[in-house]
Formats: sequence, C-alpha cells, structure tokens
Amino acid sequence: MLDPRPLTREAFAPFGEVIETEGAHSYPINEGTTTRFHDLAEVDVATEGGRPLLSIFRATARPRPIRLWLMERHPLGSQAFYPLSDYDWLVVVVSGDDPLARDNLVCFTASGRQGVNYRRGVWHHPLLVLEPAQDFLIVDRGGPGENIEEQRFSSDDPVLVSV
Amino acid sequence: MLDPRPLTREAFAPFGEVIETEGAHSYPINEGTTTRFHDLAEVDVATEGGRPLLSIFRATARPRPIRLWLMERHPLGSQAFYPLSDYDWLVVVVSGDDPLARDNLVCFTASGRQGVNYRRGVWHHPLLVLEPAQDFLIVDRGGPGENIEEQRFSSDDPVLVSV
Repeated sequence: MLDPRPLTREAFAPFGEVIETEGAHSYPINEGTTTRFHDLAEVDVATEGGRPLLSIFRATARPRPIRLWLMERHPLGSQAFYPLSDYDWLVVVVSGDDPLARDNLVCFTASGRQGVNYRRGVWHHPLLVLEPAQDFLIVDRGGPGENIEEQRFSSDDPVLVSV
Repeated sequence: MLDPRPLTREAFAPFGEVIETEGAHSYPINEGTTTRFHDLAEVDVATEGGRPLLSIFRATARPRPIRLWLMERHPLGSQAFYPLSDYDWLVVVVSGDDPLARDNLVCFTASGRQGVNYRRGVWHHPLLVLEPAQDFLIVDRGGPGENIEEQRFSSDDPVLVSV
C-alpha cells in the first residue's frame, strides 16, 4: 500500500515545483488592490520548437481502492496542474529511473490550493482525484516530436493507495 | 455608466480568447477517466526573448460604485487570467486605439468558470472582482523589455460600472 504524505515544496523539489501562494514571492500591483504571487513554476516547453499550451483537464475518480495503473513522462516539456476546485487530490511520482519500482514510489496529498509542475522527464501517475470530478488548469507543451512515454504496472500485483 | 454584458467567445474575439470548457475542442485521455479541453488560448510570450510565467493574482474588490481608473496593455505578450473560485468577475476592454474613449469601452461579466486571454497589445482594465477577494491563475510573459503601458482616466469625469 502506498501511503500519501502532505505535499510540501521541500519534499517535491526533486520532481518540480509546488504551485502555491503560501511562502511564495509576492508583491502588490494594480495600485495595491491585487497581490502578485510571481513566477511559481519553471515552464519549460521550448525544446524542439515547442510552445506553451493552456488547457483544462476534467478528471473523474477511479474506483476505490485506488490502484496505480501506469506511469508516464514527457521528455520534451514540463507539465503544470492547478486545481480549479478546492478539493484534495493525489500526486504520485517516483525516485530513481525505474518508474515501476514500487519501493521508490512517492504519493502526496495535494490540497485544493496546491498545484504541481512536473519537471521535463519526471515520471508521474496520470491525474488521481478523490472527489467524483475535479477540473485542473494545465500548462504544458505543444509542438513537434513525441512527448509521451508510458510504463504499465502489472495487474497481477497491484499497487494500491491507502485513501 | 458602463453596462456589463455576458462574456461570450464571439463578443470577445476582437480582444483574445475566452478560456472555458463550454464549446471547446476536447478528447478523452488517461484511459477515459479525464477529458482534455485542449489549447484554449494563444499564449504569445516569445517576443524579444520572452518566456511564459505562471503566477497567481489575489485581487480584492474596489469600493462601490466601481470606477475605472486606468487602462493598460502589454506590447510584448499575451496575458491569460483564469479564476480559482467560482464567482463572477468583470472584464473591461476598448474598441479602437484610444484606451480612454469612453464610448468605445466594453464591459463583460465573466462567470467563475470563464477566463480570458488578452491578445498582445490589447488595452484592458486591471482586475475587477465583485467578491471581497478572488484568486486567478495567470499566464503571461517574463523577460527583457518594457512590457506595460498605462493610461489613466481623469478623476473629474469618472467612468462608473453599473454593478
């Protein structure tokens, strides 16, 4: 069983950035009526003629118990997710080079006010939400080239998440 | 008095894109558990060595009646706003070249599920929210060069918004 831990900048640093206002660099704009929490993720999408895409993903919950089914990565660009409703959701990444090495899997519980930006090439599980449906704003890469790799877990010995 | 009208893709087309799932191109991903509403805005930030920035703006309400105080534009890049809580908010743009021409001002009421992407160089009013506070995810341009111009309304003859 994979046991989720709270998402923090420090714990997520090997994989990318946590996108959140808490602890972020900020300054007032618009004559003091607005606070700008500035430059919260390293958007890295220009490789091989890439360009930034802004999209919305509408994720639906998997059946419980939640079971990991594959890991994926984007060799040509970063991918940022920010929740559009204030519900907790799950982030699964892996330390080391083998995306299916179960002892190296790390699961975080992100709050509804925390997004993540997966650095280019970081293995991660596709969206895992806890409510029936949750929307996310996504900033990732469009352009030429093959920008996805996947590796599937065996169904014989499933990895379950303890939520 | 400036009278807000509902925000639609068609009405906003001269100024940029409305970022919304309604009517957007979409397709299933993640083995059918997620819908991707794809490429909802033309993120145009590469001019003169620019790069995409991902930030959060926390806007607070102006006193009522809401009065326009200035128009601004970003000559080097687009700027996208998407609300992070489901409250209506206001978008003010202007037809033609004079940002202070009151007969050419256009005010839209955006829903809490609608963002906008101002095309590069489009005059717009800074954030105007209707609730005490509202957060937005922003995708705009960072990099060298002067990327803001402002023009202020005279305080003698204020433009008010009828909300």
